[in-house]
Amino acid sequence: MSSRLTAGDLQIITRVPVFRGLKPETVQNIIAPATAVALRPHELMMRQDDPATAFFIVIDGWVKLYRNNRSGDETVIEIMTKGQSFAEAVAFTGNRYLATAEAVSEARVGRIPADHIVRCIRHSPDIALAMIASISQHMHHLVQQVEQLKAQSGVQRVAEFLASLSLAEQGHCAVALPYDKILIAGQLGLTPESLSRAFAKLRTIGVVVDASHVVVKDIAKLRQLANDDRSAVRGTLRSIH
Amino acid sequence: MSSRLTAGDLQIITRVPVFRGLKPETVQNIIAPATAVALRPHELMMRQDDPATAFFIVIDGWVKLYRNNRSGDETVIEIMTKGQSFAEAVAFTGNRYLATAEAVSEARVGRIPADHIVRCIRHSPDIALAMIASISQHMHHLVQQVEQLKAQSGVQRVAEFLASLSLAEQGHCAVALPYDKILIAGQLGLTPESLSRAFAKLRTIGVVVDASHVVVKDIAKLRQLANDDRSAVRGTLRSIH
Repeated sequence: MSSRLTAGDLQIITRVPVFRGLKPETVQNIIAPATAVALRPHELMMRQDDPATAFFIVIDGWVKLYRNNRSGDETVIEIMTKGQSFAEAVAFTGNRYLATAEAVSEARVGRIPADHIVRCIRHSPDIALAMIASISQHMHHLVQQVEQLKAQSGVQRVAEFLASLSLAEQGHCAVALPYDKILIAGQLGLTPESLSRAFAKLRTIGVVVDASHVVVKDIAKLRQLANDDRSAVRGTLRSIH
Repeated sequence: MSSRLTAGDLQIITRVPVFRGLKPETVQNIIAPATAVALRPHELMMRQDDPATAFFIVIDGWVKLYRNNRSGDETVIEIMTKGQSFAEAVAFTGNRYLATAEAVSEARVGRIPADHIVRCIRHSPDIALAMIASISQHMHHLVQQVEQLKAQSGVQRVAEFLASLSLAEQGHCAVALPYDKILIAGQLGLTPESLSRAFAKLRTIGVVVDASHVVVKDIAKLRQLANDDRSAVRGTLRSIH
């Protein structure tokens, strides 16, 4: 269901990195034709290979971006939440969406038509520079993800994911898994079975996962494990076992 | 060693996707202050975390982009060759380079100062839209790489890499590895040992690797293996063994 933006929506939308550095009146102008879409779990916001006619900002909830290969298998690319934007780059190129966006929870997503922004850009090139900056942030995340997938073992990626759920630098802490384990496994490039094995291994350094509750004895140790050399990690976990 | 662009350099540079759709005089204007740099193997073109002041186009040879983690370990992000550009997105944002670029072979790279292009964009917003289109292409490659790393097993990534070296869709073919095996392993997120094991497994479907020469009995089978479901592949290779 699509509707006009509320004051609350505007507060989140105007603060996203896409619009950083732009004058408030420029942002107002860009988002004038924007709408908000309320999604139930499993509802789609965009579909891989459809012509890209808009870009999106998550106002509330969780949205997963995934791709289907020729056999129809789904690979999770990213999970987006409040204040994150997606599909900016492709929306201005007349190309097709790279991925499908599906609500994981109840979610609210802002939709900004691309043709309108292209007109705004022709009027005020600063918008283009702000968009390029935002797209550059996305690339940074993708490059980091490629680095993690190549350089970290599965258990290290799990350690990094759990550590990312807390702002604490050290000491004891408790965090909640933000979505279900199958999705977490997909996001980290693991099978659900490998994720369970990783949780079991992390128990040896004081990480206890019980349903969606996670208790971490010393988060500094978890961060350390994620950053260690891949081969050193095997030793750490083995020696404690 | 940095020098002015030759006629040959210009031919390659003006054809890169960054400049697609722009008028020839606009492209001339953008590349007016560009220079070409001749690199010997292992020489650097840009360094991770340095302020981004330019973007680059490979005119000849191979250049690897890699990142160092806190412990100093290197992860290869991408290997670029003739006609490919890098660091566009970050060059316009006043941010820092995401990766280090190092020549793998003798290489020639065009360097285009960012401050000049920002001035051009303010003058002619179409340039920004062309840049966003090019950056969007890069994102596509990164998204595909994330998908491959998550969805394909090591041996499938090797199969896809070997298949990508030939344009043939089916039948017998011979290809040459474009750079050394350690670098290929890094690019595919494998250890050199896992790469050797993957080559050994591929022998069972008629792929023979001898130094840098690769003979493929039926490239359609190789492409099929790369696209199959990960769990199906294990069966294919095991049953032939």
